[in-house]
Amino acid sequence: MTKPPRYQRRRRSPPGTPPGTLTADPDAGETRVRAIRFNAEGVSEDDSLAPCAPGSILWLNIDGLADTDLLQKIGTSFGLHPLALEDVVNVHQRPKAEEYEAHQFIVLRMPEPGQDGLHTEQVSIFLGDGFVITVQEHAGDVFDPVRTRLRNPLGQMRKRGADYLCYALVDAAIDAYFPVLEALGEKLEQLEDTVVFDPDAVDMGDIHVLKRELMSIRSAILPMRDVVATLQREETQRFSDNTRLYLRDCQDHAVQLIETIQTYREIATGLVDILLSSQSNRANEVMQVLTLIATIFIPLTFIVGVYGMNFDDMPELHWRYGYPAVMGIMGLIAVVLAIWFYRKGWLGRR
Amino acid sequence: MTKPPRYQRRRRSPPGTPPGTLTADPDAGETRVRAIRFNAEGVSEDDSLAPCAPGSILWLNIDGLADTDLLQKIGTSFGLHPLALEDVVNVHQRPKAEEYEAHQFIVLRMPEPGQDGLHTEQVSIFLGDGFVITVQEHAGDVFDPVRTRLRNPLGQMRKRGADYLCYALVDAAIDAYFPVLEALGEKLEQLEDTVVFDPDAVDMGDIHVLKRELMSIRSAILPMRDVVATLQREETQRFSDNTRLYLRDCQDHAVQLIETIQTYREIATGLVDILLSSQSNRANEVMQVLTLIATIFIPLTFIVGVYGMNFDDMPELHWRYGYPAVMGIMGLIAVVLAIWFYRKGWLGRR
Amino acid sequence: MTKPPRYQRRRRSPPGTPPGTLTADPDAGETRVRAIRFNAEGVSEDDSLAPCAPGSILWLNIDGLADTDLLQKIGTSFGLHPLALEDVVNVHQRPKAEEYEAHQFIVLRMPEPGQDGLHTEQVSIFLGDGFVITVQEHAGDVFDPVRTRLRNPLGQMRKRGADYLCYALVDAAIDAYFPVLEALGEKLEQLEDTVVFDPDAVDMGDIHVLKRELMSIRSAILPMRDVVATLQREETQRFSDNTRLYLRDCQDHAVQLIETIQTYREIATGLVDILLSSQSNRANEVMQVLTLIATIFIPLTFIVGVYGMNFDDMPELHWRYGYPAVMGIMGLIAVVLAIWFYRKGWLGRR
Amino acid sequence: MTKPPRYQRRRRSPPGTPPGTLTADPDAGETRVRAIRFNAEGVSEDDSLAPCAPGSILWLNIDGLADTDLLQKIGTSFGLHPLALEDVVNVHQRPKAEEYEAHQFIVLRMPEPGQDGLHTEQVSIFLGDGFVITVQEHAGDVFDPVRTRLRNPLGQMRKRGADYLCYALVDAAIDAYFPVLEALGEKLEQLEDTVVFDPDAVDMGDIHVLKRELMSIRSAILPMRDVVATLQREETQRFSDNTRLYLRDCQDHAVQLIETIQTYREIATGLVDILLSSQSNRANEVMQVLTLIATIFIPLTFIVGVYGMNFDDMPELHWRYGYPAVMGIMGLIAVVLAIWFYRKGWLGRR
Amino acid sequence: MTKPPRYQRRRRSPPGTPPGTLTADPDAGETRVRAIRFNAEGVSEDDSLAPCAPGSILWLNIDGLADTDLLQKIGTSFGLHPLALEDVVNVHQRPKAEEYEAHQFIVLRMPEPGQDGLHTEQVSIFLGDGFVITVQEHAGDVFDPVRTRLRNPLGQMRKRGADYLCYALVDAAIDAYFPVLEALGEKLEQLEDTVVFDPDAVDMGDIHVLKRELMSIRSAILPMRDVVATLQREETQRFSDNTRLYLRDCQDHAVQLIETIQTYREIATGLVDILLSSQSNRANEVMQVLTLIATIFIPLTFIVGVYGMNFDDMPELHWRYGYPAVMGIMGLIAVVLAIWFYRKGWLGRR
Repeated sequence: MTKPPRYQRRRRSPPGTPPGTLTADPDAGETRVRAIRFNAEGVSEDDSLAPCAPGSILWLNIDGLADTDLLQKIGTSFGLHPLALEDVVNVHQRPKAEEYEAHQFIVLRMPEPGQDGLHTEQVSIFLGDGFVITVQEHAGDVFDPVRTRLRNPLGQMRKRGADYLCYALVDAAIDAYFPVLEALGEKLEQLEDTVVFDPDAVDMGDIHVLKRELMSIRSAILPMRDVVATLQREETQRFSDNTRLYLRDCQDHAVQLIETIQTYREIATGLVDILLSSQSNRANEVMQVLTLIATIFIPLTFIVGVYGMNFDDMPELHWRYGYPAVMGIMGLIAVVLAIWFYRKGWLGRR
Repeated sequence: MTKPPRYQRRRRSPPGTPPGTLTADPDAGETRVRAIRFNAEGVSEDDSLAPCAPGSILWLNIDGLADTDLLQKIGTSFGLHPLALEDVVNVHQRPKAEEYEAHQFIVLRMPEPGQDGLHTEQVSIFLGDGFVITVQEHAGDVFDPVRTRLRNPLGQMRKRGADYLCYALVDAAIDAYFPVLEALGEKLEQLEDTVVFDPDAVDMGDIHVLKRELMSIRSAILPMRDVVATLQREETQRFSDNTRLYLRDCQDHAVQLIETIQTYREIATGLVDILLSSQSNRANEVMQVLTLIATIFIPLTFIVGVYGMNFDDMPELHWRYGYPAVMGIMGLIAVVLAIWFYRKGWLGRR
Repeated sequence: MTKPPRYQRRRRSPPGTPPGTLTADPDAGETRVRAIRFNAEGVSEDDSLAPCAPGSILWLNIDGLADTDLLQKIGTSFGLHPLALEDVVNVHQRPKAEEYEAHQFIVLRMPEPGQDGLHTEQVSIFLGDGFVITVQEHAGDVFDPVRTRLRNPLGQMRKRGADYLCYALVDAAIDAYFPVLEALGEKLEQLEDTVVFDPDAVDMGDIHVLKRELMSIRSAILPMRDVVATLQREETQRFSDNTRLYLRDCQDHAVQLIETIQTYREIATGLVDILLSSQSNRANEVMQVLTLIATIFIPLTFIVGVYGMNFDDMPELHWRYGYPAVMGIMGLIAVVLAIWFYRKGWLGRR
Repeated sequence: MTKPPRYQRRRRSPPGTPPGTLTADPDAGETRVRAIRFNAEGVSEDDSLAPCAPGSILWLNIDGLADTDLLQKIGTSFGLHPLALEDVVNVHQRPKAEEYEAHQFIVLRMPEPGQDGLHTEQVSIFLGDGFVITVQEHAGDVFDPVRTRLRNPLGQMRKRGADYLCYALVDAAIDAYFPVLEALGEKLEQLEDTVVFDPDAVDMGDIHVLKRELMSIRSAILPMRDVVATLQREETQRFSDNTRLYLRDCQDHAVQLIETIQTYREIATGLVDILLSSQSNRANEVMQVLTLIATIFIPLTFIVGVYGMNFDDMPELHWRYGYPAVMGIMGLIAVVLAIWFYRKGWLGRR
Repeated sequence: MTKPPRYQRRRRSPPGTPPGTLTADPDAGETRVRAIRFNAEGVSEDDSLAPCAPGSILWLNIDGLADTDLLQKIGTSFGLHPLALEDVVNVHQRPKAEEYEAHQFIVLRMPEPGQDGLHTEQVSIFLGDGFVITVQEHAGDVFDPVRTRLRNPLGQMRKRGADYLCYALVDAAIDAYFPVLEALGEKLEQLEDTVVFDPDAVDMGDIHVLKRELMSIRSAILPMRDVVATLQREETQRFSDNTRLYLRDCQDHAVQLIETIQTYREIATGLVDILLSSQSNRANEVMQVLTLIATIFIPLTFIVGVYGMNFDDMPELHWRYGYPAVMGIMGLIAVVLAIWFYRKGWLGRR
C-alpha cells in the first residue's frame, strides 16, 4: 500500500528574529540566477543582475534559496520589501498576492514530482516597473514553455509588457496542475472500477491516500484562485485592461481545477460507502454458507448420536428396517430444510 | 451493473502555445455551417458566411470543430476575440459569460445522449450587433424548436432582435436538461422502491452511478445559472429590458433544476443508509436461525454422546426406562429453549 | 410500510412553443370563478369578471386550470403579462415574486392533503391597482378564513387596500403548513420513542419516508421565505408601510417553519444512527448466546466422544469410578467456563 | 433511559382571527403585575399600572398570560402595537427584535427548569419612552439579580435610563443559559468518559437525548444573538452609545454560547463513531472466542467419532498403543492450531 | 488511553454583580508586574506603575490575576474601560478586538502546556497613547522573544511606536500555536501509519482525543483571525500604515493555522472510516476460518456418527472394505469442499 504523503511544515524564522530577517534553510537548494532581457526587437540571456535599459523588460529567474546574501542584494537593488523577501525564503507560505508600494508580490505553489507522493513547491513572483523576478525552491521546468514563447521571434509576447509576462508565469503555474489532476483522475477511475467489480482487491487505505493527495492539491489551488481574482480586480494598477482579460481566463482554469477536485473528493467519499457495503455483503455470504451447512447437519448428527447410545433397551435398533428408516428420515429432514432455505433465498442468489 | 461514466477531460492547447492559437482536436467532428437570415418580413436559409444587411439578423450555426481555418476566418470577419475563439475549440470549458468589446461570449453545456452514460457537450454563443453565432461540438437537434419558431410566419420571434434569439437559444439549452433529469428521477424512484421493498436486489454500485450522473449534470448546470444571472444584470447593455424579463424566467428554470438535483442527491444518500441497514438486518436474521438450531441441538448432542460412552459401569444404560427417560428429558430441554427464544422474540418476528 | 411519495414533475409547454403560450394540462381541474367586491361599506359576491368601480377592491378567485381561453381573456382584460400567465398554467413552478409594470406576480405552494402522501399545490396571485386575482390548481379551503374575515362587518379588513388582502392570502398559504408540520412532528416523536424503546419495531424505510416529506415541504417553504422578504423590501411600491409590518410577521412564520423542518431533519438523521447501533447490539446479543452454548458444549461433546471410542485398551473405561469421574470433570469444565463468561460480562448484562 | 424532550408547538390564533386579536391559551398561568418605579433618587414598588412621572422610569413586570383583558388594557394605555401584543400572548415565538414607532419590541426565550427535560419560556420586552414592560409566561426568578441591583442605593443602575435597564434584562436572559449549558457539558464529559472506558454501559439513546437538548438550546440562542446584534446597530435610536458598549459585551456572551453548543454537538457526534466502533470490537472479540473453541474441537470431535465407528475391520482399534497414539495426535493438532492462532494475534491481544 | 481534555468553563461574575465589577477568581495566580520603558535611545526595566515620559513607550506586563485592587488602580490610572477590565479578570473570554475611546482592547488566547492535555490561556492587551499593557493568567515565556528584540540595541523595534509593539505581541501569541500544531501533526501522522499498517493497535478513542484537541485549538484561533483582520482594517486609527503591512503578514499566519487544522480534522475523520473498515475486515477473516473448519468437518462428523450407530443390521459395517471406503469418501468430500472454497477465494487471499 502506498504510504500516505508526509505533511509539509511551514518554515519559520527562529523565535526572536525580527520580521524581515533572511535565514537560510539548511536543506535549501543551491542558488542559480538566469536573466532574460527582451523588448519588441529581441531577446538576450545571461546571468547578470544589472537592471534593464528603459524600454526593455528583465525577467530574473532564481532557483534555490541557499544564498541568502545574494537574495538580500537583489532585494536591495530592486527595492523589494523585506517582509516579502522573508516570505520568499521561509517557504511553505500560503499562496497570496500582496501589493507593496514598489512592486506586486505573488506567492504561488507548483506541483512537484516526488517518489514519496505529491508535494508542492513555492514560487515567488515580484512584478515591478520593467522587471519580473521569479524565485523557485528548486530548478524546475514549469516555466520552460514561457521561455520558448519569448525566444520565438514571431510570438506576440515580446511586444507586451512585464504584466503580460507575469500573467504567462501565473498561467503556467496553474496549468501545471492539470496533468497532475488528470493522473489522479485516472487513479480514481481505476479504483472506482475495482470497487464496483472486484471490491476485495481494494484497500480502504488506497482511497485514503488518494483523498489526502486531493486535499493537498486543493489547499494549494484554493488560495491561488483568490490570488488571480485579486490581480484581476480593478484596484491593482499594475495590470493593463488587456492583460486582465487573460487573467480572467486564468481564473477560469483555477475554478475548473477546484470543481474537479471537489467532484473527485465526493466520488472518493462515495467509494468508501460501496466498499463498506461490499465487505458487509461478503460477510453475509460467508455466514449464509456456515448457517446452511450447520443447520442441516447439526440435527442429523443429533439423530445418529441417538442411535449410537448404548441403552440395553432400544427397540428401534433391532427392527429390521430401523437403519434404512432412520437414513430415510434424515434424508427427508435435509430436503425439507433445503427447500426452506431456497424459499428464503439463501441458495444460489448472487 | 452499469459502468460508471468516464470523466471528461478538459482539452488544452499544447504547452508553449500562446493563448489565442486554435489547434484542432484530432477527434473533432466535421465542420458544417448553416446561416439563417431574418427580419420582421421573412426568413432565408443558406450556408454563406456573408454578414447581414442592416435591419436583418444573422444566425450562423456551426457544427463540428475540425476546420479551424474556417473558424479563424469567421472569427476575423465578425471580430471575435482570439481568447474566446480558443475556448470554442478547446472544449470542456466551464459554462461562462464573458463580455468583450465587440460581442458577448457565452459558453454553455448541453446534455448529450450516449450509450456509455451521460455526457455534456459544449455550445459556444457569440452575440454581436446584428448577429448570433453558435458553435456546437457535434450536430445536435437541441436548437430545432428555435428554428421552427423562426420559420413560423405568425410567430413573434422574427420581430425581435438578436438578443431575444440569444435568449431563446440559452433557454433551449437549459430546457434540454429537464427530460434528462426526469429520466434520472424515474431511475431513482425505481431504485427507491426496490431498496424499500426488496433490498437484496439493489447494488450499492447502482446508487453510486446515479449519484455520479447527478454530479455530472450539476457541474454543468451550476455555472449556467450564474451565466444567466450575469446576462440578466443591469450592466450588460446587449439585452433589452424586455428580453431581461425572459432571462429571469430562464434563470428560474436553472434554479429549479439545481434544487431538483440537490433533492435527488439527498434522497440517494438516504438510500445508502437504508441499504446498509437492510443488509445488517439480513445478517441478523441468518445469524438467528443458526443460533436457534445450534443452541437447541448442541446440548442434546452432548447428552446422546454421554450415553454412547463405553464405560463398564453406567447404571442408566441398564435401567428399564433409561432410553425413554433420556429422550423425554431431551424433549423437555428443547421445549424450554424454544419458549425462551420465543420470549426473546427470535421466533417468527418479521 | 408507507410508499415514498412520488416526485412532482414540472409541467412545461411542448418544445417549440413560444414563451407566453397557454397550453392546458389534460389533467387540469374544471375552471370556476368567484368574484368578491368590497369597500369599507360592504361586500358583494358574484361570478362576473367585470372590473371594479373605483374605490372598491375586486378579489377574483379562480379554481382549476382547464379553461385556458377564459384565463387568456382575464389576462387581457386585467393586463396580466403573458409570461406570468404561462407560469400560472404550467404548474409546479418554484415559489417566486416577480414585479411587472402593471402588477405584482406571486407564485406560492400550499400543502395539499392526499391519500398517497404529501403534495403541494401551486397558488398564483396577481396584485394590481384595485384588484387581487388568485388562481389555484384545485378548489381548496385555505382561503376560507380570509373570506370569513371579509364578510365580517366589524372586521378591519374591508377598510384596508388590495395590498392588505394580498398579505392576508400569503399569510393564509404559509399558515397552512403549520398543521402539516405538526402532524409530521408527532409522527417523528412516535418514531423517536419507538427507536429508543423498541428498535426492532422500526423500519429504516419509515424514517426515509419522513425525511422525504420534510424535504418536500422544505423545498416549497424555502423560496416562500424569499418571496415574503422580497415583498417586504422597500423597493416594491405596491405595499404600504403598515402592510409591510404585517409581512414582517409573516416572514417570521416562514423562518420558524424552516427552522422546525431543519430541526426535524437533524433528529431524523440521528435516529438512523440509533437504529443502526441497536441492530448491531441485537446481533451481538444473538452471537453471545450462540458462543456461550457452543463454547461450553463443544469441548464436553469431544470428551464424551473420546469415551465412545472402541479401542480395545482404554483403561479408564474399566475403572470403577471412571464414569462419575468423567461426568465430574465435565461439570467442572462447564462451571469454569461459566465463571469466565460471567467475568467477561457475557451473562445477564442488559 | 431519559425520555427525549417533547417538541414545543407554536401557539397560533384560531384560523380566521384577524391579526392583532388576543386569545388566551387555556393553559396560561394566572396574571400578576409588579411595578418598579425609580430614578437616581430612589425606588418604589407597587402593583399599579399608572404611568410614571417624567424623569422617572417604570418597569412593569407581568407574569402569566391568562388575563388578556388586562394585557389589552396595558397595551392601550402604553400604546403597544396590536401585532406585538398578539406575539406576547401566542407564545413559542422565535426570538426577535422589532422596532415600532412607539416602542422597541423584543422577544427572548429563557431556559425553564422542568422535570421532563429542558424547555424554554418566552419573555417579551417593550422598551418605550420612560418605561420597560416585561411579560413572562410563568413567574420566574431570572430577573431577580436586576431587581437586587435596582434596590441597591449605591448601584449605578438607577442613574441610567430605560435603555440600560432593557440591556440588563436581555443580559440576564442570556446569562441564564450558562449554568444550563455547563450542566449539559458535565453530562457530556461523563458520557465521554463512559464511552471511552466502559462503552457497554452507554446507550446510543443517551447521546441522542443530549444532542436533542443541545439543539433545543441552540434554536433559542441563535436568533437571540441576532436580536442583540440588531439592538446594537446604529440605526436603532433607543439605545445610547454607552449602552451599546454593554450590548456588545452581551453579544459576545451569545456568540460564546453558540460556539460552545457547536463544540458539544461535534463531540457528541464523535461519540457515536466511538460507540459503534466499540460495539463492533466487542462482536469481534465474541466471535474470536467462538472460532477458537470451535476450530480446535470440531476436528478433534471428528477424530474421536472415527474411532467410535463400529466397522468390523478397524485395525487401529486393536493396536496396543492405538488409544494413546490417537490421544497424542489430537494433542498435537490442538497445539499446532493454538500456535497458529497465537501468531494471528487471536490469543490474548487486548 | 489518553483521557480527553476537560472543557474550559467561562468564568463569570456572581449573578447580581453590576457589569464592570472586578471579582478575583480564588484560583487566580499571584499578581506580578514588570514595566519596560523604551525609546529609540534606550530601554529601562523596573516594576513601577508610573506613566512614561512623552516620547517614550511603556510596556506594562502583568502576570496573575489575584490582586484585583492593583488591577483596578492600574485601570484608573491609565483610563481603562471598566467593561474591558472585567473581561481581563473573568478569563475564558472569546478572543476579540474592541475599540474604546481611550484605548484599543484585545483579548487573545495562547496555548498553555499542561500535563492533562492542551489548554489555552487568556492574554489581554491594552494599546493606548504611548503605552501597551498586557495581562496574562500565569507567568509565561511567550513574550520573551519580544523582550529580547527590545533589549537588542541594534534592533529596529525601539524606533517604532506602541502599535508595532502591540503587533509584535499579537504575532508572538499566534506563532505560539505553530509548534503545538506541529506536535499534533506528528501524532496524527503516527496514528495514520498505525491505522494503515497495524489497525488493531489503534483505539478509536485516540482519534477522538486528537480531534478534541484540534477543536480546542480551532476555537481559540478562529476568532483570533478575525481580531487581526479587525485591527488591520482602515477604520482603526491606532495602527500606522506600515504596521498594517505587518498585521497582514500576521493574518496570513492565522489563516494558515486554520487551514492546517481543517486539513488535520478531515484526515482524522477519514481515519475513522479506515478503522471501521479494517475492524470489519478482521471480523470477516475470523468468520471465514470458522466457516471453513465447520463446513468441512460438520458433514464428516455426521458420517462417522452414522457408522457409530448400533443398529443390528448395518451391512456396510461388515464389508471388508467398509472402513477404508468410508474414510476415502470423507477424504473426497473434504477435497471437494476445499476446492470450492478456493474458487470462492476464501483460502489464502490477503
